[in-house]
Amino acid sequence: MTLKNQIQEWMRLHREEGTALLQSLVRMPSTQGNEREAQKRIADKLLEMNLEVEVWEPDGELLESHAFFYSPRTRFSGSPNVVGIMKGSGGGRSIIVNGHVDVVPEGDLGQWHHGPYSGEVVDGKLYGRGASDMKGGTVSLLLAIQAIRELGIPLQGDVIFQSVVEEESGGAGTLSAILKGYKADAALIPEPTNMRIFPKQQGSMWFRVMVKGRSAHGGTRYEGVSAIEKSLTVVQHIRELEQVRNAAISDPLYADNPIPIPINIGIIQGGNWPSSVPDFVKLEGRMGVAPEENIEDAKLAMISWMERLKEKDPWFEQVPPSLEWFGARWVPGSVDPGHELIRVVMNQYKEVTAKEPVIEASPWGTDGGLLTLLADTPCIVFGPGITQVAHYPNEYIEIDDVRKAAEVIALTLIQWCGTEK
Amino acid sequence: MTLKNQIQEWMRLHREEGTALLQSLVRMPSTQGNEREAQKRIADKLLEMNLEVEVWEPDGELLESHAFFYSPRTRFSGSPNVVGIMKGSGGGRSIIVNGHVDVVPEGDLGQWHHGPYSGEVVDGKLYGRGASDMKGGTVSLLLAIQAIRELGIPLQGDVIFQSVVEEESGGAGTLSAILKGYKADAALIPEPTNMRIFPKQQGSMWFRVMVKGRSAHGGTRYEGVSAIEKSLTVVQHIRELEQVRNAAISDPLYADNPIPIPINIGIIQGGNWPSSVPDFVKLEGRMGVAPEENIEDAKLAMISWMERLKEKDPWFEQVPPSLEWFGARWVPGSVDPGHELIRVVMNQYKEVTAKEPVIEASPWGTDGGLLTLLADTPCIVFGPGITQVAHYPNEYIEIDDVRKAAEVIALTLIQWCGTEK
Repeated sequence: MTLKNQIQEWMRLHREEGTALLQSLVRMPSTQGNEREAQKRIADKLLEMNLEVEVWEPDGELLESHAFFYSPRTRFSGSPNVVGIMKGSGGGRSIIVNGHVDVVPEGDLGQWHHGPYSGEVVDGKLYGRGASDMKGGTVSLLLAIQAIRELGIPLQGDVIFQSVVEEESGGAGTLSAILKGYKADAALIPEPTNMRIFPKQQGSMWFRVMVKGRSAHGGTRYEGVSAIEKSLTVVQHIRELEQVRNAAISDPLYADNPIPIPINIGIIQGGNWPSSVPDFVKLEGRMGVAPEENIEDAKLAMISWMERLKEKDPWFEQVPPSLEWFGARWVPGSVDPGHELIRVVMNQYKEVTAKEPVIEASPWGTDGGLLTLLADTPCIVFGPGITQVAHYPNEYIEIDDVRKAAEVIALTLIQWCGTEK
Repeated sequence: MTLKNQIQEWMRLHREEGTALLQSLVRMPSTQGNEREAQKRIADKLLEMNLEVEVWEPDGELLESHAFFYSPRTRFSGSPNVVGIMKGSGGGRSIIVNGHVDVVPEGDLGQWHHGPYSGEVVDGKLYGRGASDMKGGTVSLLLAIQAIRELGIPLQGDVIFQSVVEEESGGAGTLSAILKGYKADAALIPEPTNMRIFPKQQGSMWFRVMVKGRSAHGGTRYEGVSAIEKSLTVVQHIRELEQVRNAAISDPLYADNPIPIPINIGIIQGGNWPSSVPDFVKLEGRMGVAPEENIEDAKLAMISWMERLKEKDPWFEQVPPSLEWFGARWVPGSVDPGHELIRVVMNQYKEVTAKEPVIEASPWGTDGGLLTLLADTPCIVFGPGITQVAHYPNEYIEIDDVRKAAEVIALTLIQWCGTEK
């Protein structure tokens, strides 16, 4: 029996066990600050598999002094990271496999057809917050390691499994693991790429623009200056920056992406009385950063673009909109598309699915940027699930995809780390 | 001593008393639902002057069945109207003088340099919510009546003083007085016109437009449809309707007004996450209605204009924005600029101030529309104070203007109602 057949057979036999594990994790609402229970479940699983396990709460004080620290909080009590090491026999390449346990809030309950923490399974889909983003991917990792373990396939290189907190808020969990000294010859993060392979990932950061006007009674609105009307110009201006920046992207990995590095305006809010001329509008959005671009350069591009607003309307010379960077930020990352780990994942993907793998650049950031940039650990992204449902009501994952990804990952670990068998 | 000199001398002697009365009223925060204390103060004043006084809480059930009822509430417990009648000796013309006691909320306290209910006097200005809109005008009315009373000037026609609730929310207080049967040969409302004379007044109503989009992750924003971008088209479209409607206004009373019947968009709100494509935007605003226009015709103009949005963008054919009318509404009103009461106010204004009176159409509605339309009581607007400060932080009134308006009004009452003296 080939290794591939052994792995596939093991996965078939452990299908129910995998579903139950994912269900139990989805049923633990591990939103920011509430990750402990789910992390304990994962640590227990690692201990069952006889891995070396380390569990620690990130040190806020240490993190705060780091240039890449970005989080709305500096205390991580109740929010531990978990690492499990499957030590190799030596002579092979090591790999970090990393998943985040934190999930975004469930949002408007009324829009969920299944409870957001129900883990309900209907027609092969498992529903719940975090199913795709990314407890499904984490379960693929755990199944891959368990299969290798139980089938007694000895690896030469180390596999360093990480379940981190804080990915949804800027990566402080992975940063803490990097500061602990964890690094490897390469890394893989099974975020929901729908099993496409992402050697490059977009970075992003949030911005806030305050547009000012001058209040007046709506009946004499000509006495005031409407911040809503002025904000139309600002939105249009930002859209033009998006066009200029994307016109400059020639990376073939973005060939099928109509807007490789989008600037999304997600929130608008202004005025407080229907009969008053609004004197402020707040815009909040997310600016994409190209995989090879520096975050600070992207900021400067936006800052200098905003300064040109006054060419469109002298109002902005008098009362320039303010621009600030707030909330979340994800570092971009780029690995050579010819990197050996990509070749391995491509091979195993073809083996398992009999389909051609798709290589693309990701439209969003992951903790992979930090691994590539700070830990000298080139990181690629490949996992089950789809982003179309991540962060939205009725998030789900196809259970079959969790299994297929687990097979590809198991075979990848074997080929990457090497085995004497 | 002429009547004019007698009145002026009386006002001079009672200057402090008038300031104290206005101060005591401003210190009572008579926002919606909290009018009782201020109304009691006014009723006491009327009783001191030996007027016939009626105090009653509007009957919500009765009002609700009336086509012109417009209010966010149907219970008026704690919100009485007050009427005081100075009965004439007979043979003269009657007049209603009407002020509203309700004030809009104080808003952001941080922007007030003087407490919003302090009534503080600095450099001849009395500060506080309602100082201009319109407790100052009400005090002008009370001083005018008191002067006539104390000087023993017997009038032939009745003066019906009304202090009503609910003007700021659509006029249910005045409507209740009309349903009680109060009417007269003419009416005057001392809203803050800065002592210009308004024979015509704009009506207005609030509207809400919901623009829909389709959600997606900001990193793949091309998979969604931004309701913020779509709302730019809607705002622009509404601005064009404003242009079309105002181009059709030829009334010379609007000659100096750049936008006689504005459509103000006062509130915009959309989206809820910087990294998500926003799937809704709410717009709330105020649509002006021309003095001779029918409110229903104005609504139809907006409804059919919104239907044309799909000509600009096929998205609106698929997902048309909703339009609703909510909250407040003020009926427009128009009195012949040659009306006798206008002639009288013009004369007395010239007498008191030695300046040429200014006749204009008002850029906002008052309860005068209801009096003119429903009570067969042609109503004009003339009063102290300026709208530039009404509804805003640091609202104030020039105390001198309260006195001057009181003089003009006292002389107007004498000339209009007639005196045998």
